[in-house]
Amino acid sequence: MKISDVGEWILIERLWHVLIRDPEEIMGLNDDVIARRIGRGRVLVAHVDTLAWSTDVLPGMTPHSIGFKSVIMNVSDMAAKGVRPLGILFSLGLPRDYNVAYIEEIARGWRDAAAKYGLYIWGGDITEASELILSGAIIGIASENMIIRRRGAKEGDLVACIGEFGLTSIAYKILLEGKKAPTKRIELKAKRAVYYPKAYLKEGLKLARLGIVTSSMDCSDGLAWSLHTLCSLNNVGMTIRQIPISREVLLYAKSYNLDPWDLALYGGEEYSLIFTLKRDSLSRLPSDLAKRVCIMGEVTSDRKLKLLVEGTEKSIEKRGWEHLKS
Amino acid sequence: MKISDVGEWILIERLWHVLIRDPEEIMGLNDDVIARRIGRGRVLVAHVDTLAWSTDVLPGMTPHSIGFKSVIMNVSDMAAKGVRPLGILFSLGLPRDYNVAYIEEIARGWRDAAAKYGLYIWGGDITEASELILSGAIIGIASENMIIRRRGAKEGDLVACIGEFGLTSIAYKILLEGKKAPTKRIELKAKRAVYYPKAYLKEGLKLARLGIVTSSMDCSDGLAWSLHTLCSLNNVGMTIRQIPISREVLLYAKSYNLDPWDLALYGGEEYSLIFTLKRDSLSRLPSDLAKRVCIMGEVTSDRKLKLLVEGTEKSIEKRGWEHLKS
Repeated sequence: MKISDVGEWILIERLWHVLIRDPEEIMGLNDDVIARRIGRGRVLVAHVDTLAWSTDVLPGMTPHSIGFKSVIMNVSDMAAKGVRPLGILFSLGLPRDYNVAYIEEIARGWRDAAAKYGLYIWGGDITEASELILSGAIIGIASENMIIRRRGAKEGDLVACIGEFGLTSIAYKILLEGKKAPTKRIELKAKRAVYYPKAYLKEGLKLARLGIVTSSMDCSDGLAWSLHTLCSLNNVGMTIRQIPISREVLLYAKSYNLDPWDLALYGGEEYSLIFTLKRDSLSRLPSDLAKRVCIMGEVTSDRKLKLLVEGTEKSIEKRGWEHLKS
Repeated sequence: MKISDVGEWILIERLWHVLIRDPEEIMGLNDDVIARRIGRGRVLVAHVDTLAWSTDVLPGMTPHSIGFKSVIMNVSDMAAKGVRPLGILFSLGLPRDYNVAYIEEIARGWRDAAAKYGLYIWGGDITEASELILSGAIIGIASENMIIRRRGAKEGDLVACIGEFGLTSIAYKILLEGKKAPTKRIELKAKRAVYYPKAYLKEGLKLARLGIVTSSMDCSDGLAWSLHTLCSLNNVGMTIRQIPISREVLLYAKSYNLDPWDLALYGGEEYSLIFTLKRDSLSRLPSDLAKRVCIMGEVTSDRKLKLLVEGTEKSIEKRGWEHLKS
């Protein structure tokens, strides 16, 4: 059986069954990070995420944005868990005909993203490889009782998010399908979303401190995929009544007669946070955070994921970005 | 300027100058690991090392040995610092036409190496890539005052090692140049050294606890390279009078009329430990460890690295395994 027959997720599950579980690791399979007890109620939190030339580098990406994005991908998972990252190590795979100046620009992208989120690039290793490949290993320390998991959502909880959706979908259409944006502003906003994405670290840290979030993950594999994942890990359903869609996405959708909900649901590489919280805890959100949080719907017991908009019910398909799946 | 003009080490130094240094990181550029203060005298220790198909996979390597070796590469750097690793995360880059069973065998290699050295494979990520590439990120926690650095060797210290040299050199000759071993036993020993290398973790941990080592590194880039690196980082020289060379290497060298010292000095992927220790501390080595330690020579102030054997002086060239160097 080829790995392209099973895809990334089934492969990960099969490898998991080969391995021996660390009894001090508290997150288990299928969360965004690993967290390992190190005494005094603290956990070592770590995560790896890779950017490869052939799958992840979009037309027009500069080496600076490649470096920048490879940091953001990693910061976003820590943000979703409410963990402050301390630093990152990078494994850099390089073809030998690359220019030194190009790699230095990647490092400037690392530096600038790290400075923006208050962490450090500690170093790493360099290997000769047949394509450019950047593997980041991000590490932090957290209190065991503060870290937010993917598991924990209960019937009646609210479903919420921080960040908007759809810009990366239209960026793919612009960059990969040649479907030009109707205005320069839309083009720039869409490109910025994929070249210089934003991680919601400050927001994730605040949410963790408040202790009101019951489950959380980032949306790097797409909104639909994240909602389905939270539902299946928690044995619940969700009714979604609202999705914050960027204004630029609505305009772009109109000009090509596309469904903006589809653009928002089936994108990817969007580092918005999806989370659930107890209904009665909404009032505990400080006003600066409340402004940024969008309540999308609620957790239900029927294990169905539904989108209820404009009076009609729409199903949300379980698809999103998956590596290695044909 | 192409990166193949400057090679791995100069490239790393150039990138280092682009980055902002973490004030809580205590090892600096050019050590085997990073170590970051996390309070109460403890440091978070981490290291990344990558195995790529096109540069690191030798003929005859099974997926199990690829997985096994990718763990050992990482454990060895922790061993040289006297730090017990807790676990590893792997970034796995995979071409889509690989078989699931092949990747499961890699995971069994991970599992078996991890079990042997008392750590866990925590998980990781999977990316589609144009060649098989395994980046390990190994993490541990240590006392700041116990960790052994590359810097610290002083004139008069003894130069010592744990582990023998030369087997990987003859393995390359057998596997890559077709120069068959004179006996089956030599062939098996040489192949085992590259397929299932050994890391000296127990020994490194004991040395760190004794507090007698002034500097240390592993020999993954070759013995000559490691000795030169320790000399230049410490502004000292070394006079080497003895190198433990495997009996099989001596026999192989004889049958092809090769210089066994060259085979021992200019190999690579040999995870023996090289270290310096205070002359008067030799008596503090417990007998089980003393049996495994070979005193190779001493640290000198003249900044020259010399090999004095059989009454003649031989120079030790500064060469070894370097990625991306033409």
